[in-house]
Amino acid sequence: MSLYSQRGVSAQKEEVHAAIRQLDQGLYPHAFCKVYPDFLCGDEQYVNIMHADGAGTKSILAYLYWKETGDSSVWRGIAKDAVAMNLDDLLCVGITDQILFSSTIDRNKLLIPGAVLEQVINGTQSFFDELKQYGVHIHFLGGETADVGDVVRTIAVNGTMTSRWPKQQLITNEKIQAGDVIVGFASAGKAVYESEYNSGLGSNGLTSARHDVLSKYYADEFPETFEPRLDEQVVYIGRNRMTETMEVPGFGVIPIGKLLLSPTRTYAPLVKQILDAHFGDIHGMIHCSGGGQTKCMKYLPRPLRIVKDNLFEPPVIFKLIQQNSGADMREMYQVFNMGHRLEIFTSAATASALIAKAAALGIEAQVVGYVEAADRPSLELATASGTVTYEY
Amino acid sequence: MSLYSQRGVSAQKEEVHAAIRQLDQGLYPHAFCKVYPDFLCGDEQYVNIMHADGAGTKSILAYLYWKETGDSSVWRGIAKDAVAMNLDDLLCVGITDQILFSSTIDRNKLLIPGAVLEQVINGTQSFFDELKQYGVHIHFLGGETADVGDVVRTIAVNGTMTSRWPKQQLITNEKIQAGDVIVGFASAGKAVYESEYNSGLGSNGLTSARHDVLSKYYADEFPETFEPRLDEQVVYIGRNRMTETMEVPGFGVIPIGKLLLSPTRTYAPLVKQILDAHFGDIHGMIHCSGGGQTKCMKYLPRPLRIVKDNLFEPPVIFKLIQQNSGADMREMYQVFNMGHRLEIFTSAATASALIAKAAALGIEAQVVGYVEAADRPSLELATASGTVTYEY
Repeated sequence: MSLYSQRGVSAQKEEVHAAIRQLDQGLYPHAFCKVYPDFLCGDEQYVNIMHADGAGTKSILAYLYWKETGDSSVWRGIAKDAVAMNLDDLLCVGITDQILFSSTIDRNKLLIPGAVLEQVINGTQSFFDELKQYGVHIHFLGGETADVGDVVRTIAVNGTMTSRWPKQQLITNEKIQAGDVIVGFASAGKAVYESEYNSGLGSNGLTSARHDVLSKYYADEFPETFEPRLDEQVVYIGRNRMTETMEVPGFGVIPIGKLLLSPTRTYAPLVKQILDAHFGDIHGMIHCSGGGQTKCMKYLPRPLRIVKDNLFEPPVIFKLIQQNSGADMREMYQVFNMGHRLEIFTSAATASALIAKAAALGIEAQVVGYVEAADRPSLELATASGTVTYEY
Repeated sequence: MSLYSQRGVSAQKEEVHAAIRQLDQGLYPHAFCKVYPDFLCGDEQYVNIMHADGAGTKSILAYLYWKETGDSSVWRGIAKDAVAMNLDDLLCVGITDQILFSSTIDRNKLLIPGAVLEQVINGTQSFFDELKQYGVHIHFLGGETADVGDVVRTIAVNGTMTSRWPKQQLITNEKIQAGDVIVGFASAGKAVYESEYNSGLGSNGLTSARHDVLSKYYADEFPETFEPRLDEQVVYIGRNRMTETMEVPGFGVIPIGKLLLSPTRTYAPLVKQILDAHFGDIHGMIHCSGGGQTKCMKYLPRPLRIVKDNLFEPPVIFKLIQQNSGADMREMYQVFNMGHRLEIFTSAATASALIAKAAALGIEAQVVGYVEAADRPSLELATASGTVTYEY
């Protein structure tokens, strides 16, 4: 039994996919999000999308860091995570503006005071205010905050977005084809719209990362942060405290807790500019969240060979996780983004324009790979420890 | 400290209201839901609404009943709860059709198998299929199911709805006035669109009801169903097992677990008919969920005296809860609906037509009270144990 299964998580979410099998799968089978007819207005030229996601177990990291340091600002980061995990999925179908947002927060009132709720809720609105400056308008239409301590150990922060969007401006991944190049956009660094270094970690794989990196101290001091049925041998088995620091080249010394809690970077300001200028040349777009660098394989419109032979050097946070867990490259790239959390499939001629737009926003970007014709889908990743191949 | 506080819940949600103070409160301060401009289309004649809610701790009751009896159909009821708690709030602003729905499910995979997810998700779609027959179209646009056992002890089932609606067809409660009568619509019984007796309990007040009614057996056998920091004296302090039965006049003998788990009745088929025929005469509409029979006081457009002197005889489930908890009438009516979960403020002339429409759908209805001019708001309830007055 894998560590993953022992911890009650699954990178591939097989049971969930089985459970939703009978639901309407939407208009575009290869699109990154499910897209539906315009039920709200009945216009054939438009579609409707609702999308739900959240900060997942990253809220536990915020809880631990807040308890350990008293720094409640990390809860504002959790608000950003819940937003970005939704928003960046929507970006991948081409949606960048006039989005509605509603939050769903379940808390254990005995452990999570009102001051934390204020950080999360006001942090959400602040984030929307920031994005507005880049032409990305998200409207906060309220939500539900429930006191359900018998259900939730600490706090669950989720959000839901709604969009109505013109069909002609959708990215459906249908145009991904042999000859395309893949442009990767760095998950780490400091974009012009970020206030500090971003480690590059998204809000996925955090159950693994937390237990693999953090030490048994957290199991002893904060039993409210894990399922008590878990085998002791999979609970907080790392070497580190959150207050220990790491050297990040170019950014100085940063606490490990802060690196684990970097708010998921949104690419919305960038994607808005890219689609405004190059919509017709964008063949496909993938948010490399759960599934990491293998995520793209779920959305190919036909069998293709994907080769990523020029990946980013993995940011330090992923090295830290790997040093602690001892996971091999195959697993690391299947769980974490390892360097770029957004990739765009486009023509070779367009790539350099996209890279220039990213640079102007302080986001590193490069051609990370290419697409070849094939009889069956396959994926090849050139990692620092050699080539890893996935067959489908 | 009240039992409520000791259990980490609050009927009035003071901390939550403080946390959302700075958010945009919408266009109509007295409307039952927050209503926003038509961001999706920019049409001045329309509004947008998103609404989030869920089954709350009722999912724990389903978990206990399922573990004790093996009957997994109760999870379909939880799906209905998550829908009805949203839908019936939307009804109160006049929204009855072309609604989008997205689900947000957080589960502990170690305790909640895929089969339970299938019941919840397919139960949601089945419920929408049923409602369609009454002209209420709700479109299931997917959602998120996350494996987060370190955050969630068992399962949290939430949902979010989106509507775009004509301004001219909104109920904003502005028309509630002296001289109005209040028509109450029974929460219990068996509507023509229900397959069995409904106890009348909604999805609020369930933390209290569960701990007050169920016996210590559940604390010993299912420690995963409560926050371990709770004082033993507030955890499962009732006299009953879920498999024990009660006589329900006219409906035979029913297990207490089934009565606690009756899916929240939706009034959507009825409200659709009422608004189609009597929109102009509907002065206000209240979903008596959290806050019970005092809920209406939050939405009055001006100081008024509300007198409810002809309330329904409380259904048996509420008598059972009160016998176990020893709560007084003041508290019971402030937490539970006690007989009607929907009330409409209208003219005396219109009341009988509304009551007839309800009867045709198998829902008991009656004039439960009236509205008087006043200098300051007050509420008077004539209960079986005498009159209870609330000042504001």
